[in-house]
Amino acid sequence: MAERAPATLKAVAGNGLLHRRTLLRSGLVFATASAAVADAEAMDPRSETMRGPGAPFTPYGLPSKHERLVMRRISGNRVLPGNGVALTPLDELEGFITPNGLHFERHHNGVPDIDPAKHTLLIHGRVKQALSFTVADLLRYPMRSHLMFLECGGNSNAGWHPEPIQRPAGSFHGLISCSEWTGVPLAVLLAEAGVERGATWAVAEGADAFAMNVSVPVDKLMAEGIVALYQNGERLRPENGYPLRLIVPGWEGVLQVKWLHKLELSETPVMSRNETAKYTELLPSGKARQFTFVMDAKSLITSPSHGQRLKGAGLYQISGLAWSGRGKVRRVDVSADGGKTWAQAALQDPVLPRCLTRFRAPWRWDGQAAVLQSRVTDETGYTQPTRAALVAERGLNGYFHYNAIVSWAVEPDGSVKHVYA
Amino acid sequence: MAERAPATLKAVAGNGLLHRRTLLRSGLVFATASAAVADAEAMDPRSETMRGPGAPFTPYGLPSKHERLVMRRISGNRVLPGNGVALTPLDELEGFITPNGLHFERHHNGVPDIDPAKHTLLIHGRVKQALSFTVADLLRYPMRSHLMFLECGGNSNAGWHPEPIQRPAGSFHGLISCSEWTGVPLAVLLAEAGVERGATWAVAEGADAFAMNVSVPVDKLMAEGIVALYQNGERLRPENGYPLRLIVPGWEGVLQVKWLHKLELSETPVMSRNETAKYTELLPSGKARQFTFVMDAKSLITSPSHGQRLKGAGLYQISGLAWSGRGKVRRVDVSADGGKTWAQAALQDPVLPRCLTRFRAPWRWDGQAAVLQSRVTDETGYTQPTRAALVAERGLNGYFHYNAIVSWAVEPDGSVKHVYA
Repeated sequence: MAERAPATLKAVAGNGLLHRRTLLRSGLVFATASAAVADAEAMDPRSETMRGPGAPFTPYGLPSKHERLVMRRISGNRVLPGNGVALTPLDELEGFITPNGLHFERHHNGVPDIDPAKHTLLIHGRVKQALSFTVADLLRYPMRSHLMFLECGGNSNAGWHPEPIQRPAGSFHGLISCSEWTGVPLAVLLAEAGVERGATWAVAEGADAFAMNVSVPVDKLMAEGIVALYQNGERLRPENGYPLRLIVPGWEGVLQVKWLHKLELSETPVMSRNETAKYTELLPSGKARQFTFVMDAKSLITSPSHGQRLKGAGLYQISGLAWSGRGKVRRVDVSADGGKTWAQAALQDPVLPRCLTRFRAPWRWDGQAAVLQSRVTDETGYTQPTRAALVAERGLNGYFHYNAIVSWAVEPDGSVKHVYA
Repeated sequence: MAERAPATLKAVAGNGLLHRRTLLRSGLVFATASAAVADAEAMDPRSETMRGPGAPFTPYGLPSKHERLVMRRISGNRVLPGNGVALTPLDELEGFITPNGLHFERHHNGVPDIDPAKHTLLIHGRVKQALSFTVADLLRYPMRSHLMFLECGGNSNAGWHPEPIQRPAGSFHGLISCSEWTGVPLAVLLAEAGVERGATWAVAEGADAFAMNVSVPVDKLMAEGIVALYQNGERLRPENGYPLRLIVPGWEGVLQVKWLHKLELSETPVMSRNETAKYTELLPSGKARQFTFVMDAKSLITSPSHGQRLKGAGLYQISGLAWSGRGKVRRVDVSADGGKTWAQAALQDPVLPRCLTRFRAPWRWDGQAAVLQSRVTDETGYTQPTRAALVAERGLNGYFHYNAIVSWAVEPDGSVKHVYA
């Protein structure tokens, strides 16, 4: 079926970007393959699946076998198999929630198998009264939920490479996921223990074989920290900290300590490996950034993206994700000409603070080379930088907090390449 | 450890209901079992899990083996095993999202195994041009997401029984779940086919062995209907309609046709089994209600609830879910004295239209018999009825749309019974 009407639509930016409200306009044909049917009754489909009973009920559901390739992409250390990452396949997903089975993983020494009946949380150090909580104790406490993204400080770090790596969006940027985390506010637990004057840091430790530990400012924990027990409604998954995880909204993933079993209050940070040797960044001046907690605003087009292929000229939806550790996404702009001109994308409701926000924009591809970009501005007014601006500020020795604009070059054959533009 | 401070807290309603802002007040001790630690360094826990590497990465994660009893509760037909329901264990969950593995199921003849490469959606009948869409076609269309509850019209129907049934909250009310559904707006697809004048109904049919079909007003589909491809970010689960499901926000579950393969436009409803013999209700007047699409406001305390046991007098969190098919929840009140006095519950942000809303309230249980209730008022001003009021209006021949206030009697031994109060 021929494409109808689009010739009458005026582009609002270069290379065929249409107004975002066009998404719901009548008479647009997005998939040129969609077929008019001459005699619907004659073709009346009675598929095989209608000829006999289907499968029985299942106590706990799983994805269709036809989606078995939609999985986390594992990048482990060959010498230490429990050390590495497993990335969320962002290029296969839509909406903004990440299903628990696909939430990204970052482990230092594997996933401990913790019996919740034996697990306790000790709050000690500079407190008036050290306390030890069982999981059953914590389940009785008041709860609070945060619907929020969780991003590793090292996400997207291949962006620092001199040449653009060619990987699907999720394999490059997939150390970010979005869930509803529910647990006990630390304000309640810390008040019960009684924080001593001057105890401005809390050292959180996990019960894994790495004894992962980091320092977090007590102010932040009192304001928003929770000890999470639930993720997207159900109890945490083992690889995401079962039975207890520290949650610190909007801040680096490394602070969201999994398998949490100790919180020690102190006057100074502990200066652990993950806040000295790692999660710091050498700047061009020779100084290093440290305790760079907040995740800056960032956005990414997930469709079209590398590994996908456009099937000929015509109308497409550009779809992607935007977020900011400082609050809500205010706007997202998209470009089809490598950043020369921009069109505003539609934001999916609800737009929530420190949560992934899905953006979408209609695009009429003329079949020629095009470079797609997205650029987020958050509610503080901060705008995502170009790669050139980020490199000018931080140099090329960075590793963490890469948040530059991502460019996808659409080739005339419909393939998509990662480029620095 | 002794309970501190609560004697100084003033109750705001009978039987120990405290002000909702007390939830975050300092110095409250919720779990009386929580233990003061005399020498924290001496007890410094080094659990077994810290002594050797943990498990490797997994491509698709699953719940902890310690949570294996948290599952859908299956109530199937012994003669026709693919006919029945599997309920969401609401009493085991917190927050408002339902993980996909625990979303409720209602099938008439099992779950078809559909190959998406062979599946099509036919839009035909009173349209200018019948159209057939492949799944690949639809994936190219603009998408919209609805974060919303989906409730079976027959949910909670045991409430019509003369005696209160004794079952966990999820086994009684668990034909409701909440997800982010993402798909193609029907406004776009129907406009492309061209709806003929007078074609006010659409008959949706699923590709299961029951050929499940119902009639839906075209106005509603044009305003808000989507053909969903994604649930909580990933492609639909087989038991929830893979690869295509009709989604009609705020309306009965039966309309959200799974395995959608046909949509026939017509001037009249088809008068299928599920809109005549079923999903209608005989009223005391002898007339029957039909096409009762909208799910009225309803709420439910999930903790404490039947099957759980309170461990002695002290402070507890009352937690539950509220929703309305007509929009947002405006307020939820809770009672500990069987409805004589009420205290306002705290609502978890964000409160979204036609979405589950988690409510929470602090309660000081004195160890004596108490009857807990919750009552929702939605943004239209509608308030959830008592059981007596619902029965007076609808009689006892009802089966669908039971939304009365639920009463849980807490006994002095801490057990919880379902009662009509």
